[in-house]
Amino acid sequence: MSLFHGLSAFPITPADEHGIVNTDDVMMLAEHLSAHNVDSIGLLGSTGVYAYLTRTERKRAVRAAIQAVGGKTPLIVGIGSLRTDDAQNLARDAAAEGADGLLLAPVSYAPLTQEEAFQHYKAVAEVTDLPLCIYNNPSTTHFTFSQELLGRLADLPTVQAVKMPPPKEGDVAAELKQMRQSPVGKIAIGYSGDWIAAEALFARCDGWFSVLGGFLPKIARALVDAVAVEDPTTVEQHQQNLLPLWELFREFGSLRVAYAAANHLKLSNALPPRPILPLAECDQNRVVAALALLDQ
Amino acid sequence: MSLFHGLSAFPITPADEHGIVNTDDVMMLAEHLSAHNVDSIGLLGSTGVYAYLTRTERKRAVRAAIQAVGGKTPLIVGIGSLRTDDAQNLARDAAAEGADGLLLAPVSYAPLTQEEAFQHYKAVAEVTDLPLCIYNNPSTTHFTFSQELLGRLADLPTVQAVKMPPPKEGDVAAELKQMRQSPVGKIAIGYSGDWIAAEALFARCDGWFSVLGGFLPKIARALVDAVAVEDPTTVEQHQQNLLPLWELFREFGSLRVAYAAANHLKLSNALPPRPILPLAECDQNRVVAALALLDQ
Repeated sequence: MSLFHGLSAFPITPADEHGIVNTDDVMMLAEHLSAHNVDSIGLLGSTGVYAYLTRTERKRAVRAAIQAVGGKTPLIVGIGSLRTDDAQNLARDAAAEGADGLLLAPVSYAPLTQEEAFQHYKAVAEVTDLPLCIYNNPSTTHFTFSQELLGRLADLPTVQAVKMPPPKEGDVAAELKQMRQSPVGKIAIGYSGDWIAAEALFARCDGWFSVLGGFLPKIARALVDAVAVEDPTTVEQHQQNLLPLWELFREFGSLRVAYAAANHLKLSNALPPRPILPLAECDQNRVVAALALLDQ
Repeated sequence: MSLFHGLSAFPITPADEHGIVNTDDVMMLAEHLSAHNVDSIGLLGSTGVYAYLTRTERKRAVRAAIQAVGGKTPLIVGIGSLRTDDAQNLARDAAAEGADGLLLAPVSYAPLTQEEAFQHYKAVAEVTDLPLCIYNNPSTTHFTFSQELLGRLADLPTVQAVKMPPPKEGDVAAELKQMRQSPVGKIAIGYSGDWIAAEALFARCDGWFSVLGGFLPKIARALVDAVAVEDPTTVEQHQQNLLPLWELFREFGSLRVAYAAANHLKLSNALPPRPILPLAECDQNRVVAALALLDQ
């Protein structure tokens, strides 16, 4: 199975209040995910708060994860940054530490044109041989990829996948079918937004970029495997049990819920970077109740 | 006149391709704006690409501007940053260098809640005594302030102003009237979005946060003065001449146009930070043509 296929688990990156990464906990988290047979680990994704960590700390996180699971579970590393030269340096760092692939979001402050995003991807993709996944995440980047831009990016030699957000309108199957028939069809197409994961997997997407997989890899694995053996009854059962968690993801953003869940499951003891606040205690209790429905 | 009143000119921050600030050009720009009697200089605003510069370079820019115009023209410094602790450090740096005021935008990657934004402002405002202006700029931050949040922020001891974007719907006068009557009414209310400046000035807003003022302070000053002496004919004449420039601002974003204009006017010789690309030559020619209509 190629790098951007199957279950990619996106954990939080435990760090202290100054943004210093807790490498012991990064290693423990990576080992936990690897032990539950995720197909890859998505380190320093949005849930991994890459945007809030310095280059030095991002490098330390990558090194720790490689030390823990290098050679066992492939590591995809988020290298998004506002500046093109910074993203290039993050790509070089990830490659030097032994990462298996890269994930790049079009982070912006001044809204980017389609051409600016293309040149950004091109410049970053060129500095390493590592396979790269386009990180399409409009809820954080506020950038909208045109189909034409995705097609142009799919032609870059190292671009091998795109991570799509839940469709704004219509269903995943229709979107996926349309994309497969377009120039984007030559690369792997995966989905994020855990609440549409079952739908996307049944529609035969290539990968699931999963926040759930970052703290409950066992359930995420079971969901993927049930789809693979075409067992809709089991999938439906998981979905029913997961509904309260999906509701929390949508209400608070999966990032805040992931911190509460990982801490409750004793996978970490970390707070999100300020200004992001931890969930209020009453909402943390809702997370605990949602987790109690699930086989941990 | 208090710090956040009148014409605040927001220049670009000339820097090389690695993000190293050209302090000679910062000084020249600051002197140019000061010589044309702007009421304040807004250093490291959105046009000043603060989001793309390191703490070290932002500090160098502030030091250069203070060296050039300190004691002559008040300096307002943009201190926005994704992390609360980073924004606090930028506030401390600006204060240590001798800035007169601060400008803080709720920069985000993970979308912020109203409470998170409030706590962010509170934590940053507390580290210095400098007057602070709330930077409401949804086109870059994608954060929407509720009226309730603005009211809470107006109660913080050092918060003295808000920089509002062009209203999405309705006119400036109606919005301003409503805000004056709300708890936000106790602080100064200024506007950005140069194409609505005349409308906002006639509606008696307190300040104009001007991109135009950052490269053509003479025209911006003349516009403000014509409103002050209630000379609508002169204002209308300026507006007519400025129309092509306003169109370019709206088409390309004022940031890209400001670089082309400042370079053409020999106030700088700098490119925006990649991934932001300079305007294509044909569009730069449109900027030159728009400038030719104006008294430089």
